[in-house]
Amino acid sequence: MIRHIVLFTWTDDATDEQKAAVAEALGTLPGLIPQLRAYTFGQDAGINQGNHDFAVVADFDSVDDYLVYRDHPDHQAVIAERIKPIVASRAAVQLSL
Amino acid sequence: MIRHIVLFTWTDDATDEQKAAVAEALGTLPGLIPQLRAYTFGQDAGINQGNHDFAVVADFDSVDDYLVYRDHPDHQAVIAERIKPIVASRAAVQLSL
Repeated sequence: MIRHIVLFTWTDDATDEQKAAVAEALGTLPGLIPQLRAYTFGQDAGINQGNHDFAVVADFDSVDDYLVYRDHPDHQAVIAERIKPIVASRAAVQLSL
Repeated sequence: MIRHIVLFTWTDDATDEQKAAVAEALGTLPGLIPQLRAYTFGQDAGINQGNHDFAVVADFDSVDDYLVYRDHPDHQAVIAERIKPIVASRAAVQLSL
């Protein structure tokens, strides 16, 4: 199994609408990319100071399935249209479990 | 449910032994902290360039259970003795699911 994890911080001028649109767009992907075994995402809960703003955790059966997701046009569209315009920083890891 | 996610990059002079010791120490925590519902951690799989080095994903039934883990002396010891000596950067999010 591959667990893909990515954390984002948003730019200071990112609007609440732009932030909400990220989650909304990501929410369409499980219906479009059947390789997704589990998919959790959302904004930070505000428990600790200094956290990143948003997280995505996506599970796949194999590296190949993860690569389908990574390079999928619908996923790439979410990145280009929703995430890139408001991203300040990105941190990612893929875990092989 | 609360999903705690943290990604680390290690310092350039971190040794393989020091990196392995992080995973080994984290592996003892599920036996010491019963609030942990699910616990996955490990080094980046090397699929993509520019990733962080290590990830921890920990699931809890509630914010209170997460706070027990966060402040637990055994967890704090792993941070102080294994992680702090070799951490270059840290990115974290807690998701409320």
